[in-house]
Amino acid sequence: MAMRVGVIGCGQFGLVLAAHASRCGHATTLWARTPSECEPLVRTRRSPRLPGFALPGAVAITSDALVALNGADLVITAIPSQYARSVWSVLGGSLPPSSVLVSVAKGLEVGTLQLPSQVLRECVPGAEVVSLSGPSIASEVGSGLPTALVAAGKLDAARLVQRALGGNSWRVYVSEDQIGVEVAGALKNVIALAAGMIDGMQLGTNAKATLLARGIAEIARLGVELGGQRETFFGVAGVGDLATTCFSPEGRTRTLGERLGAGATLAEALASMHSIVEGVDTCRATVALAAARRVDMPLARAVHGVLFDGLAPRDALAGLMRREGSAERL
Amino acid sequence: MAMRVGVIGCGQFGLVLAAHASRCGHATTLWARTPSECEPLVRTRRSPRLPGFALPGAVAITSDALVALNGADLVITAIPSQYARSVWSVLGGSLPPSSVLVSVAKGLEVGTLQLPSQVLRECVPGAEVVSLSGPSIASEVGSGLPTALVAAGKLDAARLVQRALGGNSWRVYVSEDQIGVEVAGALKNVIALAAGMIDGMQLGTNAKATLLARGIAEIARLGVELGGQRETFFGVAGVGDLATTCFSPEGRTRTLGERLGAGATLAEALASMHSIVEGVDTCRATVALAAARRVDMPLARAVHGVLFDGLAPRDALAGLMRREGSAERL
Repeated sequence: MAMRVGVIGCGQFGLVLAAHASRCGHATTLWARTPSECEPLVRTRRSPRLPGFALPGAVAITSDALVALNGADLVITAIPSQYARSVWSVLGGSLPPSSVLVSVAKGLEVGTLQLPSQVLRECVPGAEVVSLSGPSIASEVGSGLPTALVAAGKLDAARLVQRALGGNSWRVYVSEDQIGVEVAGALKNVIALAAGMIDGMQLGTNAKATLLARGIAEIARLGVELGGQRETFFGVAGVGDLATTCFSPEGRTRTLGERLGAGATLAEALASMHSIVEGVDTCRATVALAAARRVDMPLARAVHGVLFDGLAPRDALAGLMRREGSAERL
Repeated sequence: MAMRVGVIGCGQFGLVLAAHASRCGHATTLWARTPSECEPLVRTRRSPRLPGFALPGAVAITSDALVALNGADLVITAIPSQYARSVWSVLGGSLPPSSVLVSVAKGLEVGTLQLPSQVLRECVPGAEVVSLSGPSIASEVGSGLPTALVAAGKLDAARLVQRALGGNSWRVYVSEDQIGVEVAGALKNVIALAAGMIDGMQLGTNAKATLLARGIAEIARLGVELGGQRETFFGVAGVGDLATTCFSPEGRTRTLGERLGAGATLAEALASMHSIVEGVDTCRATVALAAARRVDMPLARAVHGVLFDGLAPRDALAGLMRREGSAERL
């Protein structure tokens, strides 16, 4: 069933989601925030944010958000976590009441420590928010490679997203555990920073695989405390997303961590990136949230130490290897 | 506390375990089955099985198993799953009664469908068997890179292994879930064949990460049915080992799968490998075991189809993408 789909945000993920929605047969409009972003996109169908990718001709592009929102059955918000509030405080009133709002941001808002769907519900009271998450490095999704995602929210809305976006090499699972799916999506970026550091220190795949296992255990502890279901963390949106983020050479968060592991300061590493890296702010928010909830998150604390407290990655690792405890905490 | 350690088997893992035990300060003797394996190892300290690796001078090498077993506190058996019975049927009587037998094989015995510790207990009645498993690509372990493993068995014996082999960049967790740890170690090789096929078909990291998540869920289903604990599969010896096996470019099982994914037949792919690939026999045993226990293992069945029934990897994948079910089964 063809729908009208609006995509808010033209970062990497906004671009490939607009392309996918269009390939699924939906009338798709992509919103670029400023005319200076919009104009070259209209003219070339390409973006410096995702080299090699071209937006299908059928995707309409606009810098007028109302055009993207008007009459949309599905609105996909691909605005980074720290900017969603400012954007949706303005746009919220224009979201058609019957539309489903699909959130693909992966992070925690600094200050409020809220998940993306919680921010959206504050900005757009009454909105039906579905979180869409899973292993989805943008360049691969843009190339049409097989992709599995979880649509989490109220069952009817999640199923609508499944019907709308499943197919064309996508497999979409539905879940009612929105908190679990969003916690997993946010916190994987913190662990991905550590994975990058391991790469930067050239410590090998075994170490990174251990990090993945210990990382998802730590994420699940916080997620369960926040109301998520333990199983979610061991599914596609949990350990699946964590794996692609830790192992794909293309992920921005892992790449930033790699530069830190190789000896760069945070300022130097950030200066070398061309787009927003969700993990940095989310690490700050995660450590605050873990402290507030009294959940022990040694990996997140170690990453925080490297990012903000001048801890050397090697010393952070040594501290983790020295920890007490003879059995694995799961 | 310095011990006497015997290492039975001079494949990749036997070599690096002997080196590690020696670096831990233990008097270590490595058994090579035949004089023709033993002699060049004694002369060069190197093996064509693990290029770049050199055995420390302190490791004694013998082709007389009794020399390796005599007075050993710890005996590490690094014989592939399909050969352990024939070796230990002969050696079993010479194992010192007070020694702990550490099993590092990862597979299921074809025919009996037994786990390595079950085979060992049949061959060496009364032996205290501890299974040592986790993300441990041999070349990295040999280079002294950080390694985390789980020692699973009776608590006292597992703790002895932890004390003996922990340190020197190794972190050893103890677990009483020997079945879970061994099932995870065996079945990861089946999923790694599928991961290699994804690489051979160039389907990307997102697809491989999805396979990892769906793979560990499937492994856990069988493992729980066999008496393992669900948590084990989401720990270092479960999803951790699976991750390194699926993502390290060096793993033999993944490499074999990659050749199959690129179009080679099983015979062609096997001919190009220089050592035993545990996953092939274990896949056969897994499908038989899953059928006997009535556990649904679609990924293992798909790999079996490619290995033995002439199914093309692309058709196997298409079959998996078409499967029914809107929620993830965890």
